[in-house]
Amino acid sequence: MSTTTPADYLPTDRTVPTRSRERASYDREAVHSVLDAAYVCHLGFIRDGRPVVLPTLYARVGELLYVHGSTGSRPLRTAGREADAGLPVCLTVTHVDGLVLARSAFHHSINYRSAVVHGDAYPVTDHDERTMALDAIVDHVVPGRSADSRRANTKELAQTAVIRLAIEEVSVKSRAGGPNDEPEDLRLPHWTGVVPVTSGYGAPVPADDLAPGIEPPGYLPAG
Amino acid sequence: MSTTTPADYLPTDRTVPTRSRERASYDREAVHSVLDAAYVCHLGFIRDGRPVVLPTLYARVGELLYVHGSTGSRPLRTAGREADAGLPVCLTVTHVDGLVLARSAFHHSINYRSAVVHGDAYPVTDHDERTMALDAIVDHVVPGRSADSRRANTKELAQTAVIRLAIEEVSVKSRAGGPNDEPEDLRLPHWTGVVPVTSGYGAPVPADDLAPGIEPPGYLPAG
Repeated sequence: MSTTTPADYLPTDRTVPTRSRERASYDREAVHSVLDAAYVCHLGFIRDGRPVVLPTLYARVGELLYVHGSTGSRPLRTAGREADAGLPVCLTVTHVDGLVLARSAFHHSINYRSAVVHGDAYPVTDHDERTMALDAIVDHVVPGRSADSRRANTKELAQTAVIRLAIEEVSVKSRAGGPNDEPEDLRLPHWTGVVPVTSGYGAPVPADDLAPGIEPPGYLPAG
Repeated sequence: MSTTTPADYLPTDRTVPTRSRERASYDREAVHSVLDAAYVCHLGFIRDGRPVVLPTLYARVGELLYVHGSTGSRPLRTAGREADAGLPVCLTVTHVDGLVLARSAFHHSINYRSAVVHGDAYPVTDHDERTMALDAIVDHVVPGRSADSRRANTKELAQTAVIRLAIEEVSVKSRAGGPNDEPEDLRLPHWTGVVPVTSGYGAPVPADDLAPGIEPPGYLPAG
């Protein structure tokens, strides 16, 4: 396992974009920040020679990413079968921050932050690491929740596969700020600017079978 | 090109999940609905034998999906080089609707809707189809915007690659509703229910160089 160091990640052929290089960063804090601000990633892998992209929950623990799922699910099963070599994956996390409306259609854009992690995923078989990873995934979605729920029992653990991916080959790409119109377009009559994209949480909806008197805990995300 | 028909999409080996099959649908309206409610997808392709997943804008036009980008960007360049065979891609769109907090860690989940489209992407070279697709992508993000902006000129069109993917092999997966706890867990003291996940728009931020008197147009998404 890697340990966290303050140094940047090393750019590689895969992580240096062919264009808009000024939008790419290998800064460790920037990478962690993008990864920690979401809980759903898009995991890409190859099945029968073709790409597959599935949304899934994940968590970062230091320089490792954990993904879990049913032992019957395809990427997790595949990683299990190829334990020696690892399963080549690409784990991508994207935040959309704003719609950028330029005067020209060409310069329309999106303000965003995304992290793209390339690597090989390995099944996690050690009991303690599996338990830690499962707690981390629950707490990544709702910090504090794992301690306030019944932990997985032996049967449930047997149904759950966990895979691990080291954060080594990674880049963050981002765009922020207003439109970049051509000088000759500045006099056009079209409104131009950014429409911020927001995300948040609504009021918690108790389950139908929740016993009276159990109030929403303080760690729930605020609306 | 395909034409829209009311029939469901045909399930294939790739689109029938190995588990939770009750969450999968091949209903044409359900597929269109998920695809139309977002404008950023995650596009997966294979580069040098490894998976790559990148976020990108897209639009649906009937039974076709269009993705655009710089002619220098990797997937678009690759599709251009392999025009005869097409570029194998997987285009995935995900909406997160809620955090599902069960009494057991195991039954924690996410309410979501996702569409996964498998197919081969081809470069769009016809001028009229390219122009239509670029308008569609702008209008998919902000309906009505393409008519209120300067259209791409010849130089800009030359810098823009557009690829097309037919919606044929596709499924929607979704989860809705409350937690599914085990009967023996119902008496546990943990709060259980769903935290809705919301998304929206903030007040439009005019560009620094916007001339006075140009008001935000009525088609901007409301906050």
